[in-house]
Amino acid sequence: MVIAPERADRPNALLRPVPELLQDQASCPFCPGNETMTPPEILRRPGERGWSMRVVPNRFPALRVETQLARKGTGLYDSMAGVGAHEVIIETGEHARTLSQLTPAQVFGLLQVFQERIIDLSRDLRLRSIFVFKNSGTPAGATLSHAHSQLIALPLVPPELTAELEGSRAHFERKERCVFCDVLAQELADQERLVFTNAGAVAFCPWAARSPFETWIVPRAHESSFESGSAQELRAVADALAVLLRKMDRALEKPAFNLYLHTMPLREARNDWYHWHLELKPVLTLQAGFEWASGCFINPTPPEEAAAFLRQTEV
Amino acid sequence: MVIAPERADRPNALLRPVPELLQDQASCPFCPGNETMTPPEILRRPGERGWSMRVVPNRFPALRVETQLARKGTGLYDSMAGVGAHEVIIETGEHARTLSQLTPAQVFGLLQVFQERIIDLSRDLRLRSIFVFKNSGTPAGATLSHAHSQLIALPLVPPELTAELEGSRAHFERKERCVFCDVLAQELADQERLVFTNAGAVAFCPWAARSPFETWIVPRAHESSFESGSAQELRAVADALAVLLRKMDRALEKPAFNLYLHTMPLREARNDWYHWHLELKPVLTLQAGFEWASGCFINPTPPEEAAAFLRQTEV
Repeated sequence: MVIAPERADRPNALLRPVPELLQDQASCPFCPGNETMTPPEILRRPGERGWSMRVVPNRFPALRVETQLARKGTGLYDSMAGVGAHEVIIETGEHARTLSQLTPAQVFGLLQVFQERIIDLSRDLRLRSIFVFKNSGTPAGATLSHAHSQLIALPLVPPELTAELEGSRAHFERKERCVFCDVLAQELADQERLVFTNAGAVAFCPWAARSPFETWIVPRAHESSFESGSAQELRAVADALAVLLRKMDRALEKPAFNLYLHTMPLREARNDWYHWHLELKPVLTLQAGFEWASGCFINPTPPEEAAAFLRQTEV
Repeated sequence: MVIAPERADRPNALLRPVPELLQDQASCPFCPGNETMTPPEILRRPGERGWSMRVVPNRFPALRVETQLARKGTGLYDSMAGVGAHEVIIETGEHARTLSQLTPAQVFGLLQVFQERIIDLSRDLRLRSIFVFKNSGTPAGATLSHAHSQLIALPLVPPELTAELEGSRAHFERKERCVFCDVLAQELADQERLVFTNAGAVAFCPWAARSPFETWIVPRAHESSFESGSAQELRAVADALAVLLRKMDRALEKPAFNLYLHTMPLREARNDWYHWHLELKPVLTLQAGFEWASGCFINPTPPEEAAAFLRQTEV
C-alpha cells in the first residue's frame, strides 16, 4: 500500500466534500494560458494554441523520484520509501473536450506520449513497473474535468500485475502458448463477447468480467511490453479505443470510467508469455463489503449481454 | 466472479440512479408489520414488537441454495453454477436506529445470530466459505437504510481469503506461530496503531492500511473459526465493535462503512495458524484506475495518525 500523507492535511481531512469539478476555464490548471498553475512541464506536443498535449508532475504526488530508496523492517512489518513518479498527461488544450471526442489520430498521439514517458522513466533503475490510467468522472475518482490521464511508476511489481504475470506464465509453461493469444482466438471464434475488431486490435468483454460492461482491448500482434509496440499496433489500438469510448458514451450515457494499461515490468526482455493490453471499466457498481471481504465481484450484467449491447450501439 | 443477471433487468439497467434510501417506515421491508414484504424468515429473535432481529433470504440473491452444483469448461474458461446462499440479517426492529446505536448486548446478540447461521449453513456440504458483511450508507453500497447485515455462502474459497490463508500458513510454517497473534503482540507493544483494547479483544489500524481509518478487531484468544468462538470471546468482540462504531460516528461524522468477518472455510478443523477477526473500512476514498490496475491502494492517512485520532475521540 502507498501511504501518502502529503495528499491529506489532517486525519479527518477526507471528510471535506469532494470538490466540484472545475468547469471554469479561467481557474482550470490544465487550460492553455494557465501553464504556471502546474509544476514545470516534462513534455509538450505542439498545437494550435501553443500545445496539444502536456505532461506535468502531479501537484499532489503519491510518490516522488527525489526520494532515497530506503527499505526497513519494523518487527514483523516491512516498508520502503515512496520512490516513484506521478505524472499527469493533459490530453487536449480544449477544456470541454473529452477523450471520447478526440480523433483516432489524437488518441494515437496520446498512446505515443505514454510510450515516450515510459521509455524515459525506465532509465531510472529504481523503478520497476509503470501504470498509465485514466479516471473519468467524479464517481471514477476524477477531481478535475479537463481531460487527462495519469502515470504512476513504482519501485516494485504490485499484487494485481504480479497475479496476472504469474497466471500468464503458468499457462505458457503448460501449453507453450500465450494466454492472451489463446483468449483472442477463442473470443474471435465464439463471437458472443466480441464488441468489435479492426485489423490490429480486438475489443471484447472478458469472460467472468468483474463489473458490468468491463471491456478489454488487446492488440492482435503478440507483444509483451507496450513500449515495444510498433506505430502500426499503437494506431490499431488507438482506433479501437476511440470507437469503444464512443460506444460507451452512447450506450451508457457518458458513464464515469476507469481505463488502464497492463504491460510488463520495466526493462524486461520481450517474451512469449505476456501480452500488453488496455482494460476499461465503466463505474456502474460499487466495491462493497462482500467484494472487500472475498476479492470476488458480483456482476449483474453477463459479459455476453454487455457485448451484444455494445455491438448494437452505432457510433 | 459471480455473474448474477437476476440482479439487473436489462444490460444498461444500472444506469438508473441508485434508489433513495427508504426513509419511510410504511414502505420499509425491514420494519415490524411489513414482514410479508420479505421472503419467509429463516430465523427470528423475540423482542418487544414481535422480534428484535430477523434473518431472511435476500430478495435479489447473488447465489441460491436451490441450484445444482454443476461445473463446466468452455474452451479456456471454467464456470460453475451459482450455488450458495444470500441472506439478510435485520439488526433491529427500530427503523431509525443504527448498529452504532445498539447496546453492546444487542451487538453480541447479532454476532450470535451470525454464528447460528454459519453453523446451520455449514451442514450444506456444497458450501465452502461464508462471508458476513455490512454495507452502511449509500457510498458503501447500501440500498436500504434500515440497519442490516448480509451473509453470502460460496461453493469455493475466493481469492482474498485464499491469499490471507496462504500468507498465514506460510508465516506459521516459518515461525510456528500464528501471524495474527504475532501482530497483536507487536501492536500491543508499539501502541501507536492501537485504537483501544478490552479484556478479550484489540482494535487497531493495521500496518500499511489500504484506506483511511481502516480498523481491525481481533480477539485476543487464538481461534481459527468464528463459529467456534466462545460466548466470552464474542462478547468481548461485540463490546469492542460497539465502541469502535461510536468512535467512527463521532470522529468521522457518521461515515458510510463496510464491515466484514474473515474466518476459516467451513468445516475445517481448528488450527494454530489462522485467527478470525473483523475488518472495518469507512468509505472515504475511491477504488480508481491505479488501484484497479495495480492492486495497490494509495492511503493519504497513515494508520498511526488515524489510530491517534480515534484514541482521542471520546464516546
